[in-house]
Amino acid sequence: MLSSPGGRPHAPSTVGELGEFGLIRELTSRLTDGPAVRIGPGDDAAVVAAPDRRVVASTDLLLEGRHFRRDWSTAYDVGRKAAAQNMADIAAMGAVPTALLLGLVVPAELPVNWPSELMDGIRDEAQVAAAAVAGGDVVRGDTITVAITALGDLRHNEPVTRSGARPGDVVAVTGWLGWSAAGHVVLSRGFRSPRAFVEAHRRPEPPYHAGPAAAALGATAMTDVSDGLVADLGHIAEASRVRIDLHSGDLDIPAQMCDIGHAVGVDPLQWVLTGGEDHAIVATFPAEQKLPARWRTVGEVLAPSALPQVTVDGAAWDRAGGWSHFDDTER
Amino acid sequence: MLSSPGGRPHAPSTVGELGEFGLIRELTSRLTDGPAVRIGPGDDAAVVAAPDRRVVASTDLLLEGRHFRRDWSTAYDVGRKAAAQNMADIAAMGAVPTALLLGLVVPAELPVNWPSELMDGIRDEAQVAAAAVAGGDVVRGDTITVAITALGDLRHNEPVTRSGARPGDVVAVTGWLGWSAAGHVVLSRGFRSPRAFVEAHRRPEPPYHAGPAAAALGATAMTDVSDGLVADLGHIAEASRVRIDLHSGDLDIPAQMCDIGHAVGVDPLQWVLTGGEDHAIVATFPAEQKLPARWRTVGEVLAPSALPQVTVDGAAWDRAGGWSHFDDTER
Repeated sequence: MLSSPGGRPHAPSTVGELGEFGLIRELTSRLTDGPAVRIGPGDDAAVVAAPDRRVVASTDLLLEGRHFRRDWSTAYDVGRKAAAQNMADIAAMGAVPTALLLGLVVPAELPVNWPSELMDGIRDEAQVAAAAVAGGDVVRGDTITVAITALGDLRHNEPVTRSGARPGDVVAVTGWLGWSAAGHVVLSRGFRSPRAFVEAHRRPEPPYHAGPAAAALGATAMTDVSDGLVADLGHIAEASRVRIDLHSGDLDIPAQMCDIGHAVGVDPLQWVLTGGEDHAIVATFPAEQKLPARWRTVGEVLAPSALPQVTVDGAAWDRAGGWSHFDDTER
Repeated sequence: MLSSPGGRPHAPSTVGELGEFGLIRELTSRLTDGPAVRIGPGDDAAVVAAPDRRVVASTDLLLEGRHFRRDWSTAYDVGRKAAAQNMADIAAMGAVPTALLLGLVVPAELPVNWPSELMDGIRDEAQVAAAAVAGGDVVRGDTITVAITALGDLRHNEPVTRSGARPGDVVAVTGWLGWSAAGHVVLSRGFRSPRAFVEAHRRPEPPYHAGPAAAALGATAMTDVSDGLVADLGHIAEASRVRIDLHSGDLDIPAQMCDIGHAVGVDPLQWVLTGGEDHAIVATFPAEQKLPARWRTVGEVLAPSALPQVTVDGAAWDRAGGWSHFDDTER
């Protein structure tokens, strides 16, 4: 079990016993300041610095039973994951995360330590990116729902959309691919190890810094890998009206992932190509652009053709599809 | 029944049949541009102008059964109300709303026209304030949940918090008070009229422009009335460490509201003092400040004393308390 850093003992009580204002006090007491937050929680609205004169904003919802399970992930990990997936979207535009807003639905019978540890996780993940929680809302309801909005600053980079990839560009990726999917398979079969993959599923580590760095290097298109590499590159190919071919030999498949794949009868390449939720960052760059060490060139941008918009070694990837939030995958 | 402006015929289908991407396409097809939205829905994140170099941000959740009922309000009205309550928070800081982000939880069996008309309502209310929907997220779940984040620009006004009220200031209000509460009472007794109050409950009309105007006039503290006048002034009194006394004779109680009160055996002053959700704007001003025509002076700021932090005609208001989202009021 992962411990909950920053946790402290609680009087045993439920969210319903504590009441709305008590819970808000408890949650805000756990927060720390962030350099961009001018006015934090407690007023009608937050005020956040936007030195670039533009603000980047993204919102995501996580529901219990659909996006997380309390028996698989601690509240702390859910908080880190919720913050991470939102801030990855900010980074994937080329921006630096500055602040998060939290909308939280909690059942009355939920022990208070669950939202408290969730908040600790959100706070700590925000701090990884030098951001902070600036405000939120808490209401009672039947299903735990975590709605996070992340804000970010472009620092004078132009935002990198999905629509700028051009034939001749290279496709490069940084961060982790397939680790969360492998961890999901391990957990769903009742195992708790290998730890590295289980922890990757519980708590992704998006390479936040890589987004603004890629923007500064002239990335032509960029996204984070939330639905799977093939699916998310499909969004770039669609928006940019190009074809993208991945070179499977250039994709890094760790030996331990091969071992799990062998044990469960799955080609680990499938996890790398279609596993979401690691929040790697994938971008296209002009071919002549020299890339920093942690980026790996994994494919190329081609003119559109009769082939599917994303191919692997020149052919359709049959098992592609990625992760649809309307599937019942986690049910 | 209110009609749904902007609605158009739908192929009969449910959210589940349409799928995540189909629903997102349907919803975004209904949107219009806003002057501040540089990059709208469809990428990893939105980009919104923040010319002031600061962005004001607020987030709120509305749940079916708690904050709205499908038999009382159309989807269109829920959308307008959700957008209104968020943009009222932006205005209450002294800012101009610029953009909204929508997180939406929908059951698979929900007819598609419900979220479509919700989106129409959000779009139209945003347009009232010259804002626009910039992005969002849609997931499937059991309870319809509308999570809205509003962004705004201060236009070089200083943000007006709840903590700046000083003894000697006057308390002034603009907008509607008690109308939504009276409409709630009418609806809960199975009536559909008087229409003015029923419509006020279904669709508040916050005076967005008044927030920035009050900031420019030197308001010392400000909030929107979402929980009731006494409760929300309590937040200002608490944050400012003052007492606030309301003068009941200065509160406008329309004759028709008196009639409803008489019919149901409720003192309509209670609705005016404790009814939330109209999103009037209440602010404190230096006593010498001349106020525009639509502001009404309703009380004064005093030094703290042994009396409650908010009094009415110098005495405690027994029936105060406002609206707590953890109560079962709408259940």
